[in-house]
Amino acid sequence: MSDEQDLGITESKEHSPGEWYAEVVQKAGLADYAPMGGFIVTRPRGYALWESIQDHLDGWFKDTGVTNAYFPLFIPESYLEREKDIVEGFDPEVAWVTQGGHDELEERLAVRPTSESIIAPFIAKWTRSYRDLPMRLNQWCSVVRWEATETKPFFRTKEFLWQEGHTAHEDGDEAWEETMTRLDQYERLYEDVLAIPVLRGRKPPHDKFPGADTTTTVEALMPDGKSVQGGTSHYLGQSFAEAFDITFVDEDEEESVAHTTSWGLSWRALGALIMTHSDDQGLVLPPAVAPTQVAIVPIWQEDTKEEVLDYAERIAEELEAAGVSVELDDRDERNPGFKFNEHELNGVPVRFEIGPNEVEDERVTVVHRPDGESVEADRDGIADAVEDHFEDVHDKLYAAAEENLEENVREAHSPEDILGTIGRYGGYVKTPWCGDEACETAIKEEIAAEIVMTPLDDDAEPIGDDCGVCGDEAVETAYFAKSY
Amino acid sequence: MSDEQDLGITESKEHSPGEWYAEVVQKAGLADYAPMGGFIVTRPRGYALWESIQDHLDGWFKDTGVTNAYFPLFIPESYLEREKDIVEGFDPEVAWVTQGGHDELEERLAVRPTSESIIAPFIAKWTRSYRDLPMRLNQWCSVVRWEATETKPFFRTKEFLWQEGHTAHEDGDEAWEETMTRLDQYERLYEDVLAIPVLRGRKPPHDKFPGADTTTTVEALMPDGKSVQGGTSHYLGQSFAEAFDITFVDEDEEESVAHTTSWGLSWRALGALIMTHSDDQGLVLPPAVAPTQVAIVPIWQEDTKEEVLDYAERIAEELEAAGVSVELDDRDERNPGFKFNEHELNGVPVRFEIGPNEVEDERVTVVHRPDGESVEADRDGIADAVEDHFEDVHDKLYAAAEENLEENVREAHSPEDILGTIGRYGGYVKTPWCGDEACETAIKEEIAAEIVMTPLDDDAEPIGDDCGVCGDEAVETAYFAKSY
Repeated sequence: MSDEQDLGITESKEHSPGEWYAEVVQKAGLADYAPMGGFIVTRPRGYALWESIQDHLDGWFKDTGVTNAYFPLFIPESYLEREKDIVEGFDPEVAWVTQGGHDELEERLAVRPTSESIIAPFIAKWTRSYRDLPMRLNQWCSVVRWEATETKPFFRTKEFLWQEGHTAHEDGDEAWEETMTRLDQYERLYEDVLAIPVLRGRKPPHDKFPGADTTTTVEALMPDGKSVQGGTSHYLGQSFAEAFDITFVDEDEEESVAHTTSWGLSWRALGALIMTHSDDQGLVLPPAVAPTQVAIVPIWQEDTKEEVLDYAERIAEELEAAGVSVELDDRDERNPGFKFNEHELNGVPVRFEIGPNEVEDERVTVVHRPDGESVEADRDGIADAVEDHFEDVHDKLYAAAEENLEENVREAHSPEDILGTIGRYGGYVKTPWCGDEACETAIKEEIAAEIVMTPLDDDAEPIGDDCGVCGDEAVETAYFAKSY
Repeated sequence: MSDEQDLGITESKEHSPGEWYAEVVQKAGLADYAPMGGFIVTRPRGYALWESIQDHLDGWFKDTGVTNAYFPLFIPESYLEREKDIVEGFDPEVAWVTQGGHDELEERLAVRPTSESIIAPFIAKWTRSYRDLPMRLNQWCSVVRWEATETKPFFRTKEFLWQEGHTAHEDGDEAWEETMTRLDQYERLYEDVLAIPVLRGRKPPHDKFPGADTTTTVEALMPDGKSVQGGTSHYLGQSFAEAFDITFVDEDEEESVAHTTSWGLSWRALGALIMTHSDDQGLVLPPAVAPTQVAIVPIWQEDTKEEVLDYAERIAEELEAAGVSVELDDRDERNPGFKFNEHELNGVPVRFEIGPNEVEDERVTVVHRPDGESVEADRDGIADAVEDHFEDVHDKLYAAAEENLEENVREAHSPEDILGTIGRYGGYVKTPWCGDEACETAIKEEIAAEIVMTPLDDDAEPIGDDCGVCGDEAVETAYFAKSY
């Protein structure tokens, strides 16, 4: 990033969101395109964001009984075939290893598209008695799904990073509770860390994870009006346990079949993060995930350089000691304006400007990245004050995203109304639904929108008596949206 | 692990080290065998050890200018072919993806055996000026090498976990310094964290990383007399930079070719850890990596249960508050003897035994896992005292391994002497060496020992004038050993 002309974002988020997104990802140094279509290289600044997401989630997982493990990258074809829904669901998307060294393999090996079919047999092997349950395993790894679509970093790539959790339980209630615990943690990640409000729901039956009883989801609305499936938590019932013999001796010495769950969140969360908050100046990040939280830009003339730098250095040390990630940008060869632009492009949430006036007044000029708000702060107690600024920045980002979400959930009661509303505004259109996939298909064929979720609450009455598409009796409420 | 008969190690470390190792790995819950030969499943207790190694190394890497990134799992065949030494070095060991979904791929994709050939082109792309250097990238990932050998968990597997660092520098001195920095960190991991002394050296020219100028290594001696290559750091000179066009504009505005390094440490470190310290009771771990550092076993009768458990709980809380990883084993259904055995099997470094006597005397009985040493400690200040016990346990483990190493470096000056010494004692046999690979081959054909290293110090005189194998003029000292 040494050339000045590389620094500016030239595309407009409003007018060409796709090109704008690609430009932010590249110019902020988050990712680059690999030589093979569908693959990307995650650069240090992008990977640091993923590490931050990992740190948060992994801590919560461990606090709630999950242990990490690592299962093989490859799954023998015969294993993949043991759960027929899995085969049918993933077969067209699998990358196959057929040669090892100079030899043809006797059995093809799938590069894992997801690991239920290699993990479940081991959960079966390790589960003997109710004392071994619940068993909660998670792995952080990459998976490969050979989808032939245009590459969009972190949203659509043939290889992606994720975590996949797999658990087994004595009964269905406990497994359902587990499913909800993980969905709660995904919601918490989006809302409290990434500053993105989400809707919680379940996928319609025809869009469940292959073989699952229920697939639950958190959905985030992007500024361009499309929905992102932010993380999914599957209640698998007993279908996988039956297919893979996950049985145990219960407290009454009876042989029982376990109930299982699986749940995953991928680097798509990074895509949602970048797309939601960033602007035409570049990346915007909430402080909780920003690799650099504060950039200090000293502003000096030759005769004030020493005192300004001294003052800035002491502030940097104080912030560091308080656990703040801070960069003192004392480069000689760049002027303050250039530095402002660069830190804005890179999404540093808070900037400190320090010149001779600040030194004299024992103050700091604090600037918030999202809206450029500039505040004078006392030098004294700056390490405490900066935490308040972080909270402010987070709240501003969350509020803007929440406003976008609240304004873009609309109601419709006829096919024309559904199509017209999505066509005009994007966002979510909720409508009473009879439960028949054909009603989704009718909309999808016209406008490429689908049912991204139905509300989770089992007792919820649909918002009307008649299906908004076919007019038959409605049993629930469907949220239609275009989606990533 | 619910059945009592699973708890005991039945094999002997001294008499059948291979079977003993496999039994410890399985019974201590570290790993299991995958359905495909050459692959293993890393279970939570084994993965926690890997996470601990990652935490230590990753922190040191970041403190010394390294940033993490993630490059694709697959490398196009044409990329692998750009550095001819890499192709020749890895071609026989590559797993090839040839099908994506239902389609044959136009170009085969290698599952990464190491990532120089996909990372170097990006370092080339991102390096324009000397200001972009040094560039230091690291990734934690899995790699696949299709070697057809018997599976030995963490030592020989077709897929293994590792980190690979890749750096580019302005000149050779800086790149060499980088090579040494990483070797130092590997040495520190082994000695200060894993309690295993290592020898530092360089690989003989015929055993360097393909294309490297110099391959440096830390070697650890196992109790069975074989050497483990514990981590390698390669000074690549300019060969990769030339093959992949890693050039930059230097301070004088001249186009220059960079110097590069790469360095890696794999889960083989786990293998060395398990094999070095463990015994016929099971796993033995130094406190710095143990997932559970202290197991508290309360010993009660019905009438003393409440006071003993209360006392034990308060101690557990105090240790936890001090950052110690502690497990209070208050299971009703197991007796103390069973618990002792289980925690010994699992390698918990320190055990607290707490019965009515300890409560009355306000003391704790502290037992060290490696040697069973039992000490009475004051209840007061126990959280501080436990750190001293951790240090003691570490020192005991290190001292035993160091004694093994020191006793097993011998000198020989004729082929008969080299063969006889390795045959009788194992360990390292050092001998003056002319530098000719043929002299290694002569020994290798007789006894499967090879030159695992030569000392790093460039000025070191060989320990004799004549090559210990052929009698020609010696130029350095070779360390022969059998190795994993």
